[in-house]
Amino acid sequence: MKKIGILTSGGDCSGMNAAIRSATRTALGHGAQVVGFRKGYAGLLKGDLLEMTTREVAGILHRGGTFLQSARSEEFRTVLGREKAVRHLQDLGVEGLVVIGGDGSLNGALALHRMGVPVIGIPASIDNDIAYTDMALGVDTALNNIIYAVDCIKDTASSHDRAFVIEVMGRNSGYLASMSAIATGAEYAIIPEVECDIADLCNQLRKRYEEGRSNAIIILAEGAGRAQNIADNIKDAIGFETRVTVLGHYQRGGAPSVFDRLLGSRFGHAAVEQLLAGEKGKMVGLCCGEICATPLETVVVSEKMQQDELHELSMILGI
Amino acid sequence: MKKIGILTSGGDCSGMNAAIRSATRTALGHGAQVVGFRKGYAGLLKGDLLEMTTREVAGILHRGGTFLQSARSEEFRTVLGREKAVRHLQDLGVEGLVVIGGDGSLNGALALHRMGVPVIGIPASIDNDIAYTDMALGVDTALNNIIYAVDCIKDTASSHDRAFVIEVMGRNSGYLASMSAIATGAEYAIIPEVECDIADLCNQLRKRYEEGRSNAIIILAEGAGRAQNIADNIKDAIGFETRVTVLGHYQRGGAPSVFDRLLGSRFGHAAVEQLLAGEKGKMVGLCCGEICATPLETVVVSEKMQQDELHELSMILGI
Amino acid sequence: MKKIGILTSGGDCSGMNAAIRSATRTALGHGAQVVGFRKGYAGLLKGDLLEMTTREVAGILHRGGTFLQSARSEEFRTVLGREKAVRHLQDLGVEGLVVIGGDGSLNGALALHRMGVPVIGIPASIDNDIAYTDMALGVDTALNNIIYAVDCIKDTASSHDRAFVIEVMGRNSGYLASMSAIATGAEYAIIPEVECDIADLCNQLRKRYEEGRSNAIIILAEGAGRAQNIADNIKDAIGFETRVTVLGHYQRGGAPSVFDRLLGSRFGHAAVEQLLAGEKGKMVGLCCGEICATPLETVVVSEKMQQDELHELSMILGI
Amino acid sequence: MKKIGILTSGGDCSGMNAAIRSATRTALGHGAQVVGFRKGYAGLLKGDLLEMTTREVAGILHRGGTFLQSARSEEFRTVLGREKAVRHLQDLGVEGLVVIGGDGSLNGALALHRMGVPVIGIPASIDNDIAYTDMALGVDTALNNIIYAVDCIKDTASSHDRAFVIEVMGRNSGYLASMSAIATGAEYAIIPEVECDIADLCNQLRKRYEEGRSNAIIILAEGAGRAQNIADNIKDAIGFETRVTVLGHYQRGGAPSVFDRLLGSRFGHAAVEQLLAGEKGKMVGLCCGEICATPLETVVVSEKMQQDELHELSMILGI
Repeated sequence: MKKIGILTSGGDCSGMNAAIRSATRTALGHGAQVVGFRKGYAGLLKGDLLEMTTREVAGILHRGGTFLQSARSEEFRTVLGREKAVRHLQDLGVEGLVVIGGDGSLNGALALHRMGVPVIGIPASIDNDIAYTDMALGVDTALNNIIYAVDCIKDTASSHDRAFVIEVMGRNSGYLASMSAIATGAEYAIIPEVECDIADLCNQLRKRYEEGRSNAIIILAEGAGRAQNIADNIKDAIGFETRVTVLGHYQRGGAPSVFDRLLGSRFGHAAVEQLLAGEKGKMVGLCCGEICATPLETVVVSEKMQQDELHELSMILGI
Repeated sequence: MKKIGILTSGGDCSGMNAAIRSATRTALGHGAQVVGFRKGYAGLLKGDLLEMTTREVAGILHRGGTFLQSARSEEFRTVLGREKAVRHLQDLGVEGLVVIGGDGSLNGALALHRMGVPVIGIPASIDNDIAYTDMALGVDTALNNIIYAVDCIKDTASSHDRAFVIEVMGRNSGYLASMSAIATGAEYAIIPEVECDIADLCNQLRKRYEEGRSNAIIILAEGAGRAQNIADNIKDAIGFETRVTVLGHYQRGGAPSVFDRLLGSRFGHAAVEQLLAGEKGKMVGLCCGEICATPLETVVVSEKMQQDELHELSMILGI
Repeated sequence: MKKIGILTSGGDCSGMNAAIRSATRTALGHGAQVVGFRKGYAGLLKGDLLEMTTREVAGILHRGGTFLQSARSEEFRTVLGREKAVRHLQDLGVEGLVVIGGDGSLNGALALHRMGVPVIGIPASIDNDIAYTDMALGVDTALNNIIYAVDCIKDTASSHDRAFVIEVMGRNSGYLASMSAIATGAEYAIIPEVECDIADLCNQLRKRYEEGRSNAIIILAEGAGRAQNIADNIKDAIGFETRVTVLGHYQRGGAPSVFDRLLGSRFGHAAVEQLLAGEKGKMVGLCCGEICATPLETVVVSEKMQQDELHELSMILGI
Repeated sequence: MKKIGILTSGGDCSGMNAAIRSATRTALGHGAQVVGFRKGYAGLLKGDLLEMTTREVAGILHRGGTFLQSARSEEFRTVLGREKAVRHLQDLGVEGLVVIGGDGSLNGALALHRMGVPVIGIPASIDNDIAYTDMALGVDTALNNIIYAVDCIKDTASSHDRAFVIEVMGRNSGYLASMSAIATGAEYAIIPEVECDIADLCNQLRKRYEEGRSNAIIILAEGAGRAQNIADNIKDAIGFETRVTVLGHYQRGGAPSVFDRLLGSRFGHAAVEQLLAGEKGKMVGLCCGEICATPLETVVVSEKMQQDELHELSMILGI
């Protein structure tokens, strides 16, 4: 394989740069050339690319986001668009493609695979909602960002006897909410996978209050309700002063944690090794601490199992 | 002076614990006893207090918030309430009081002073809106919290060619907004003291965009407009994808910075030294790197000068 | 089981408090009493203990070290000492014991098990050198501490064209060195498990230098050589200005990462559930993301497998 | 003034990039061209330079070190070398020079000034040992790095009843040691300006120990003694287990704090404004919160006043 392409697509996350760097250096080490497409599939369509050298990827490992940038491409969703992408890859002599991104991006990778492009996907999504990998890129950094902010807010909550409803990311997945609830000692986690009984929540807070514990942190996954509504309910039910903080895009960025730097480095390395070994149409993942590879067509139709046990643990320890 | 009281009042901030610790140790070093009132003036009224020892204030220096807690007290706003507070202090044998807080708290301290209680105030307010001190407690930590979050958001903004409107605290003061705009290289700061010309803002963003710089950070002081409105305006005017993040209470807490630990330590020490030297009815402050003391009645009627020069600098460097 | 004891022993690490808190709350939730012994086995021998309540373990989750403290006990290494420990447990009515610590501490736990005490161990060791768990408590936080420091040092190294030899912990294990080398993009990792060829190292640095890359980071596990010697060798061989930093005890402490807070919470919960289910003489561990339990007598005679693949990856990416 | 040069010299520190960025943007805003010399005076001699544009200085504000790099130049210490430097500046059409660095660098700037080059200096030195500025660039970030590490080490110290001697930078200046001692609640600071009475130190530690406080942190400025000697003395005198950590180059780098980003931005802006206003041979500084300018010949012969009061405060609060 003489030339390999790399792109990042969908929502950015910390660790993408580690994967880009590692894939690039691994390919260069095998004597292959590397090109990076800017802004995901859009760059592939526009021919917006970058010759990737050892130097080009120096000094990016510890930076958040993706220096190749990311974007949505409407054109790539069309058959014509995809055909154009394949032509561009052929014209450029790119014989293998590494796609780093979430669900939508991996679907795009599968489409290219079906059109004959050797492609390997790398799962990157702070929601940790991609099947066939224990952890996706960006999750650990997002969690560490969250607990940093929640620790700060707890200082205020405990100084003032206040409840806080803190909204974290996770439209369909409560992973970030459950994990950060355990990790910050929050009193309650509200997640999309489990119906929240507001009356029960208020009862617990009232009981705590009667025991003299008069501040509380409730972590809410964004897909599980509106923070202000929940705060209003708490206020109405038990008269507790309740504030709302929506952590928002702060969660995505920042210097990647060790875990995401290692994971990105391993994913990038494995993706290129897979391509060089003739594999294609797969996603690399983390399975029991080892790197595994699963056909993209299996990945994109599978739903990630919920970790009920961990949500329950968050409730046991919150008491 | 045989017994000194300490309380924290109003919004909590990082560095309050340093001031409590320092005041306590200074007083103990002079052979005085120290009591801490819990939850500000409310604790003074309820007799909710704590014997302060060297041990009691060990291990609090690096923690955000205030371990004496803070709260509002409606009762203390009444004449009867204040008379009760004075009686309590007399009954407890408290001969001097250190009040740590913002504008409202210092007004309370002045009231007690006028009723004959020897009291020294310590300015604590993340908005930096208290006159007669260059910096109030908590400002530097809040700023460092803000830039940590904004640096994270910039990773995302630059990965996606997006504009972000980031709301920081500051109802009447643009200090946090202007300073964090300079410190993060934000493109624009919107502050209460200076009318914001949205058309001008949009023109600048459009001009940047035409030069190929397609992401932008706008820092908004909470008192200077609604973040979502401004984002909508930008979107309408130049079609730029614009997201909003409201940093909220995250700004208040967290391990205090060096500056706030030093400032709190110096303020706490100076406040007790003032009391022991027979001073009263004053607020200690930072004036040109030295500790100064100003009559509370002067402080509470003065407005902190705006730092126009620094807001302008934020605009010059944002270009 | 009516009463459960908890102790931390050996070198402290971040995440121990999470384990203590979780074990305590789990036991209390099952209606059992909990006592904490201070300073490890020494406290067990002296009867230095603490009644553990929900309150007692509030506010410790995010703090480094162990609030139960740790210490070595010569007395506990003797048969008489251990017999005394068993008697104390019986006198106190402690029917199950949770021991949190490294190799030596788990050996102590095994000894108590053999004397009839129902005991469950929790692996805690920043070196990650304990078999039958993918990760020990404290490793992830230590790694994050290390990369924070190395990122700082890289700023200086790249500002000055200097090489740095940075010594990290790991007497017999290169885990921290290899992982932090990957995670920081270091040029070289020197570990006890693999003989270091200084000539080869110098050749690589010289080659880099000739390509114009004139700064370098070498991560050294403490058990793999003396940092100053290696720096002197580099200086002599290629005339490169080379500085040494020994990270030391800074690596141990600090606010635990998400990973260690979750791991500690899960370990503490599982250890108590094991005891309540009648299990004994085992160590809980993390196996493929799930909690597993292995007999202590198996654990203490096993050596943790090296991760050769990851050391190699550190070398591939360092180029 | 049509063209302005910038260089960073001597030991790097956080905030230098903010100063470079601000000076560049200010000059460009006035229609002047800007060149950056790489590796300090060495780059000036070799003609190793960089055209500075708005883009070139984008994305550097939050990064430690100096992207223009720094180095020592033996050649520049000679008269011939300096004459060459002046010729180079003339040949390039550089009409004004901004020099960012410490004592040695400012001496170099003075030499150029005396040879007719319009030059303005910016004080940068983590030791805070430059006169005529309340704070030099890099000090605040270094202090925040130090307290981050010391907070971590305190976790270990308090888990184990140990004393730690922690060496911080400061060959002739105890500023970092005294300030970080106050900010971390250390028990003792040993600084070059005040003779340390080891017997007194040991007595204090013994007294603490007898009161049951059995861990201690001693902060040592590197110029005030050898850490291991002091640890050995403590061990010999009171049998206290005492460990040593030398923080080393970790202190220099890292993302600059708000304070250093603001200070660098203000210094860079002011330096260029001074040049454009026809000023020369001066150093800008921070005087009572305002920017001041002092002749370089005054600066380099002056010694920065010690802050005895703050060292005493560190001792009062350490008790």
